[in-house]
Amino acid sequence: MSQPEGALAGIRVVDLTRILAGPFCTMLLGDMGAEVIKVESPGGGDAVRGQGVIKDGMSWYFAQFNRNKKSVTLDLYTDEGKARLAELLASADVLVENFRPGVLDNMGFDEARLKELNPELIVGSVNGYGSIGPYVNRPSFDFIAQAMSGFMSLTGEIEGEPMRAAPPIADLIAGLYCAFGVVTAIAARNRTGEGQYVEASLNNSLISLMAFLSAEYFATGKPPARSGNNHAIVAPYGMFKAKDGAIAVAPSNETYAIRFLDAVGLGELMDDERFRTNADRMRNRTELLVIIDAATERETVDHWIETINAAGCPCGRVMTLDEVFDDPQVRATEMVLDVDHGDHGSIRMTGFPVKMSKTPTRIHRPAPDLGQHNNEFFGED
Amino acid sequence: MSQPEGALAGIRVVDLTRILAGPFCTMLLGDMGAEVIKVESPGGGDAVRGQGVIKDGMSWYFAQFNRNKKSVTLDLYTDEGKARLAELLASADVLVENFRPGVLDNMGFDEARLKELNPELIVGSVNGYGSIGPYVNRPSFDFIAQAMSGFMSLTGEIEGEPMRAAPPIADLIAGLYCAFGVVTAIAARNRTGEGQYVEASLNNSLISLMAFLSAEYFATGKPPARSGNNHAIVAPYGMFKAKDGAIAVAPSNETYAIRFLDAVGLGELMDDERFRTNADRMRNRTELLVIIDAATERETVDHWIETINAAGCPCGRVMTLDEVFDDPQVRATEMVLDVDHGDHGSIRMTGFPVKMSKTPTRIHRPAPDLGQHNNEFFGED
Repeated sequence: MSQPEGALAGIRVVDLTRILAGPFCTMLLGDMGAEVIKVESPGGGDAVRGQGVIKDGMSWYFAQFNRNKKSVTLDLYTDEGKARLAELLASADVLVENFRPGVLDNMGFDEARLKELNPELIVGSVNGYGSIGPYVNRPSFDFIAQAMSGFMSLTGEIEGEPMRAAPPIADLIAGLYCAFGVVTAIAARNRTGEGQYVEASLNNSLISLMAFLSAEYFATGKPPARSGNNHAIVAPYGMFKAKDGAIAVAPSNETYAIRFLDAVGLGELMDDERFRTNADRMRNRTELLVIIDAATERETVDHWIETINAAGCPCGRVMTLDEVFDDPQVRATEMVLDVDHGDHGSIRMTGFPVKMSKTPTRIHRPAPDLGQHNNEFFGED
Repeated sequence: MSQPEGALAGIRVVDLTRILAGPFCTMLLGDMGAEVIKVESPGGGDAVRGQGVIKDGMSWYFAQFNRNKKSVTLDLYTDEGKARLAELLASADVLVENFRPGVLDNMGFDEARLKELNPELIVGSVNGYGSIGPYVNRPSFDFIAQAMSGFMSLTGEIEGEPMRAAPPIADLIAGLYCAFGVVTAIAARNRTGEGQYVEASLNNSLISLMAFLSAEYFATGKPPARSGNNHAIVAPYGMFKAKDGAIAVAPSNETYAIRFLDAVGLGELMDDERFRTNADRMRNRTELLVIIDAATERETVDHWIETINAAGCPCGRVMTLDEVFDDPQVRATEMVLDVDHGDHGSIRMTGFPVKMSKTPTRIHRPAPDLGQHNNEFFGED
């Protein structure tokens, strides 16, 4: 092969995960060059194989999250299935699972058994609430983590109801944290020679992203309220009217505010006593936003994006997904991939968010059919 | 020391980042046990030192994102400052920066120079749009990435305006991806002996999380619309009324739907021709939700959370941050930490989202004062 090896070349991952959070974790490891062996139930396999739009026998949603994986089928309720899993684990570097806590143990693969099979094995788990605590046996789901992490209480219209993020961010961030933990454990194993357990939960993953909102709560004892698209403490900031649509502008400090107002021809407002300081502008925000909208609505979205960015103030279009994936910047950074899936045709998917200069992330195999690699691992079946 | 070493013990990170995305990346590396040397400008240092609530001379926002770091001051516009940075880089494993593309080169640290200083150095960059493409010189910001990634177009009330997530998720996810890339490069270096460049951008990081929404767009050519808190294709699902508040319920498939309706005493609805299949329930959703609210309104939030979870259907409270950080599950998994900062008092912050069994994440030092470690690295100053 003339292509460079991936960063995780030589790392074998046994993947017992299904649906989204776990498969996203193992996709990230596969994108980095690990050999990922997806273990599925005979019959249907991962439920996502039947979800979303299916064309030529392949779900495009499944294809996205299961690229760079092999598929084998094992019935883990049988002794034969368990014996084959044990053999795979003995040869692996990493096991990733997203069962509820305790299920893997009950299946016969508790800590002692795994250590006996493979003392260097790293076990990554994605779960709902963590592996200890009062909710450990509760079923979990992205929407519930968005509710219980405080995320929804802070997001949405000021007068509206608490609002979830449309993408399943709790699932995906937990999967990403788990991948980070697994790779960190691989780096540590190079020094210590030992495997270990690594874990991320949907709930704690989202909680860890509350950032200045949690810092503000801890410092004041008062939970912050929803502020819609407005900045809580800076003005002007947010969405503004253009002739043919809306622009998002983020002048997060005084320097940016001056650049923005200059760029829209309103530099003199900074000498107006109503708007001289940020405190003045917050006090007279409604008035200020009316003045700015009256100026910005004279020109097009394209004009303002060009002009305001050139002035050094962050500005962009609120894009729908068709615009996003046609954006020349998104294309230039190869965030749209068309991947040949043989009989299933060419499937379009999102590219790689992490770029590596010497061990580039790439597609080394398309998403597998159910049990496509049984022969490779188990001989004739 | 009786405490176990962190997973990244022995790894030295030179940290040129400021504000949020980059410092979050290096915080994650520090939490895993790396030695992080935060290089700040003399005078004020990282602007976040002056942001958020400041008590006893320390910003609680700064303390959260700069735990487990040392601080040195260098004026990188002077030859002396550059020489000291070169010395630090020669001794380091990782450099992390969040300048705009090209700035590090212009400072005198281009690829050739870095290779000469340290051929094993891994360089992690967090930027707005990537290091190639038409927008490479645009300033970027979390809110703009939320607008340009499609995230806002999909989030918010159906009849309302596109809505951002309140937490700065583009910054944080880019920082997390960068940390994942850096640690993956460390694992690769153990095999290859070579460093490399690793990069994550705010815009591409959020785009990579569009999940089934992007898969649906790619498969159909039609960008999905906002669906508020409703599930696009499943009913019942979302927020329901209880006697004293609202509950979030996520019965994402037929099995969960049956469990939910049984738990609220409406199991017979599954035999009603209006609600027999998911397609029926989507068609008659308004009617169905009225019936369910009438039932759930009779009992309290606590009652339903207990009952519906016990029935095996995911259910939770929409929590504000005070409730989140008092939640017994959040406490049990140590997501609230009180960290002694000496003269600055005890500062409360969020705990560790990734748990490691043998090399636990922990606080090995509080956030530093500006230049606190100059003496350690540069001798008497």
